[in-house]
Amino acid sequence: MRTGERSLWAVMLAVGASLALSIQALAQSDPLPSWNDGVAKSAINEFVHTTTDQASPKFVPLAERIATFDQDGTLWVEHPVYTQVVYCLDRVPAVVKEKPELAQVEPFKTVLSGNREAMVMLSMDDLLKILAATSTGMSTDEFETAVKKWLDTARDARWKRPYTELTYLPMIELLKYMRASGYRTYIVTGGGQDFVRVYSEQVYGIPPEQVVGTAGGTSFGYDKKGRPFFTKDPKLLLNDDFAGKPEGIHLMIGRRPYAAVGNSTGDRQMLEYTTAGDGARLAMLVSHDDAKREYAYGPALGLPDTKVGTFTEALYDEAMKQGWVVISMKNDWKRVFSFE
Amino acid sequence: MRTGERSLWAVMLAVGASLALSIQALAQSDPLPSWNDGVAKSAINEFVHTTTDQASPKFVPLAERIATFDQDGTLWVEHPVYTQVVYCLDRVPAVVKEKPELAQVEPFKTVLSGNREAMVMLSMDDLLKILAATSTGMSTDEFETAVKKWLDTARDARWKRPYTELTYLPMIELLKYMRASGYRTYIVTGGGQDFVRVYSEQVYGIPPEQVVGTAGGTSFGYDKKGRPFFTKDPKLLLNDDFAGKPEGIHLMIGRRPYAAVGNSTGDRQMLEYTTAGDGARLAMLVSHDDAKREYAYGPALGLPDTKVGTFTEALYDEAMKQGWVVISMKNDWKRVFSFE
Repeated sequence: MRTGERSLWAVMLAVGASLALSIQALAQSDPLPSWNDGVAKSAINEFVHTTTDQASPKFVPLAERIATFDQDGTLWVEHPVYTQVVYCLDRVPAVVKEKPELAQVEPFKTVLSGNREAMVMLSMDDLLKILAATSTGMSTDEFETAVKKWLDTARDARWKRPYTELTYLPMIELLKYMRASGYRTYIVTGGGQDFVRVYSEQVYGIPPEQVVGTAGGTSFGYDKKGRPFFTKDPKLLLNDDFAGKPEGIHLMIGRRPYAAVGNSTGDRQMLEYTTAGDGARLAMLVSHDDAKREYAYGPALGLPDTKVGTFTEALYDEAMKQGWVVISMKNDWKRVFSFE
Repeated sequence: MRTGERSLWAVMLAVGASLALSIQALAQSDPLPSWNDGVAKSAINEFVHTTTDQASPKFVPLAERIATFDQDGTLWVEHPVYTQVVYCLDRVPAVVKEKPELAQVEPFKTVLSGNREAMVMLSMDDLLKILAATSTGMSTDEFETAVKKWLDTARDARWKRPYTELTYLPMIELLKYMRASGYRTYIVTGGGQDFVRVYSEQVYGIPPEQVVGTAGGTSFGYDKKGRPFFTKDPKLLLNDDFAGKPEGIHLMIGRRPYAAVGNSTGDRQMLEYTTAGDGARLAMLVSHDDAKREYAYGPALGLPDTKVGTFTEALYDEAMKQGWVVISMKNDWKRVFSFE
């Protein structure tokens, strides 16, 4: 046996042992300590046991264990503004510095004014213009560097913490529990694929190839020294929201998930696609009903359907009809954030 | 420990043990028995040892071990016609039966005539029309069923065998060796992603989520019973050839590969992208120089660059300059097919 092979032995045995140990740990302690006992926690445990017990008629082979998670409002805070929108707004001054002519053009003029009330009124078209100006026309490496730098320094307005700390502890536990049970966990987000990939591994333990998101085209080219790089183009390839979520899953994964978790109408089709499969399927929706620890903007508010996904009454009714599990932040979660 | 957890233990330990056993098997016997000793085989072994030995300065962590493989002409026979083109041509009668008006329209008229010489002269535009007519406007399930049925019955003209048997045994060994060494093997093909995914797991051991190919859009919708399904649209999302290959890798994987194997100018940019990374990188090109056992249409023929990738003299020169390994089918492969 040569050195390379001996070390591979070690790696593989370590992988096997660590998986086995994590399962032993699960067997001995609660894998979901931040979840209160209730329908949601029971549904998760029941699903995992049913699909991973080889004696179960609903056993799912390892290769097919796919679980998909929305990000904004499901894994981390989305209210009052998506984190990626904050990033884009924060980038406007740097963009205008390079292209001073934009300073007198809307919507950039409004953003530069710093008038929060005016900024809240920006239309979807305005936001797309800002997205294009701040997130395309540069190399993928430049974009990654800028996002990393911003994540290191930006703080949210309410908790004064890095955005990457505003993840929900119970959902992090769920991701880990699913992975320890042999599920590959994917993020399927309306957010930008390149944006989320910058931090997904560190924050969620989810590698770039398991992030499906709204994706623009890139152009492969060469720099002055002949080294290849990608330019981010202002061309939409995949709008990974609403029906775009299952379409993105088909494109990037090519398998129907066994479990899917979301929090809005933007996730409806993903949950429908997931639960239309045979055998045991788990579909869950996070309801934001905890004004004290986070926010309350769930179905109780009776929000209308909009271009941006929301948890409408119609979605709540569909969840009840379909047997999807509604997670009440207020009642199902012992803790919301790890910093609490 | 509950039943589900006990069985998980068993699964995980089995996974660990089987990986460890496969590595033990590699250490005890040659993982590439169909390869003759030579530069190509040595380069593969050297790359695997260098990147998997934890003591090596060029060790690559498990999570980053990505290897990408072109399909047509690299993993299986592409000459004289791509297998997927044969599929599309064979589907024309069924399409015309449903839309009789096409019988009098080119290029369908030529295909129905059965005149092989006229069919060989069809332009790329004609082929795209045939592709659209035979591979879009149906559900993804219907497409998969039709491809499976065709693969079961169609035979190639020279060996009179199912196309799925026309894979190169040395490349199948290489795929297995890379996987046993912790590499995730991806197909990155100019062929249709949905087409290749139908058989990739069975034929190559490569699951659908590790097939990156030319991809059209799909539309998520509901059938009469309200069940979700996808319609294949005649809209190109990703032309996964030439520069489209690294672009597809960025979109679908989001990591630079450590190893890439191709056989034509269609793979050039993928190999450039791969070898532009730090550390040990492996880039290889299969040269079709074996008229007796397969075909000879390599750089010796001095073919010009065309829209379809070919192994040109310019590509050969670049390979030599860049230190890419050229695999000679004639000299490097003891056996070409498993049925020999």
